[in-house]
Amino acid sequence: MPYNLWYWPGIQGRGEFVRLALEAAGIEYRDCARERGAEALMEDMASHSRRPPFAPPYLTLDGFAIAQVANILLYLGEHHDLAPSRLADRLWLHQLQLTIADMVAEVHNIHHPVAMGAYYEDQKPEAARAAEQFRAERMPKFLGHFEDAAKANPGEWLIDHRWTYADTSLFQLVEGLRYMFPRRMAAIEGDYPQLLKIHAQVKTLPGIAAYLASDRRLPFNTDGIFRHYPELDEA
Amino acid sequence: MPYNLWYWPGIQGRGEFVRLALEAAGIEYRDCARERGAEALMEDMASHSRRPPFAPPYLTLDGFAIAQVANILLYLGEHHDLAPSRLADRLWLHQLQLTIADMVAEVHNIHHPVAMGAYYEDQKPEAARAAEQFRAERMPKFLGHFEDAAKANPGEWLIDHRWTYADTSLFQLVEGLRYMFPRRMAAIEGDYPQLLKIHAQVKTLPGIAAYLASDRRLPFNTDGIFRHYPELDEA
Repeated sequence: MPYNLWYWPGIQGRGEFVRLALEAAGIEYRDCARERGAEALMEDMASHSRRPPFAPPYLTLDGFAIAQVANILLYLGEHHDLAPSRLADRLWLHQLQLTIADMVAEVHNIHHPVAMGAYYEDQKPEAARAAEQFRAERMPKFLGHFEDAAKANPGEWLIDHRWTYADTSLFQLVEGLRYMFPRRMAAIEGDYPQLLKIHAQVKTLPGIAAYLASDRRLPFNTDGIFRHYPELDEA
Repeated sequence: MPYNLWYWPGIQGRGEFVRLALEAAGIEYRDCARERGAEALMEDMASHSRRPPFAPPYLTLDGFAIAQVANILLYLGEHHDLAPSRLADRLWLHQLQLTIADMVAEVHNIHHPVAMGAYYEDQKPEAARAAEQFRAERMPKFLGHFEDAAKANPGEWLIDHRWTYADTSLFQLVEGLRYMFPRRMAAIEGDYPQLLKIHAQVKTLPGIAAYLASDRRLPFNTDGIFRHYPELDEA
């Protein structure tokens, strides 16, 4: 039985981190709100009254919903062998995923620094300040952390000798940052050769290559998490 | 052998979520940076070069470090029986903890909306806007979610009939919000009776009562995550 994935239609957003792991592993799923619309998503979300997701994305199976990207990936990792089996390794992988989630939250905060519920247009001066410190301080700090993590692993992936969900997530992080900050990324990404290597390796995994070539992969846009506003980018 | 907990001395911060679980369960730990200072923390953090924490808090055991609050609690939950054993229950609990982490990140964002590395004093107008939407929209949304979660459980805790790490974390959330937004919390907390009940129950757990009465429990202050700036509070 395929999984039901529920996420806002029309954007990659946080749902993409789940999609990439599913696609790379060849796990069957239905992208329910893409098929049935945002209203169906809101109805389905309200139906999980016993254990409600706070927000999409979530995956349903056997009548219950698993929400929070890192939690979904933790589950998929253990049940579809997309994660190592040693405890220390599993915790390390999850830790990296949680740090990716932290960076993604900071990325969202750039275009919505003071009012999550209002438009970017209503907080442009604040966003400009947020983008400046993100480009200067946070980007190198996060990317340097992931580079160090990858470098310390003797294998060619983040952990061990095969891809895991944190590798597909790093791929998406690089893709998103290149879309959002093309000038800044061009200026600094060379400092992170291991990250770029993992990005390139993920891109050619058969499941990912097929996905990226399909119409299931939506283009980035300015409704998602990673948004390209030229005024926020600078080398 | 006691665990080594490493976190910035002088504040409760994110470390407090780990401390509360350890104290409630009576698990021995050494609060290393309280004993040895911030410089020792930075040295220790740098020593984990193979698998570096991105930031404190982290727990060390058998030579490796576990970072990210929710990850640490996941580990403690499984290894010290502070979490249920059924898969669906464990995922639900972790999901709640991750949503608590999201709220804590938004709380931090209030006083540092545009420049995480700068002082609050350098971003006061932005912080005022961020606080306004947090009080009006985000607080009721998050607290309502946790209230619904607690209400849906037939037992007297968040899950089942005994406390887990998410209960001690909710306790800290209520404590922190009461310190940071006394007027706002006084105005709305009555809407969340189940949350307040869990808060009261955690407070009287023997391990927590002893901890709160000890000098190990630092007072809240304006260096931590929850900061009381009267100008940001309003009913």
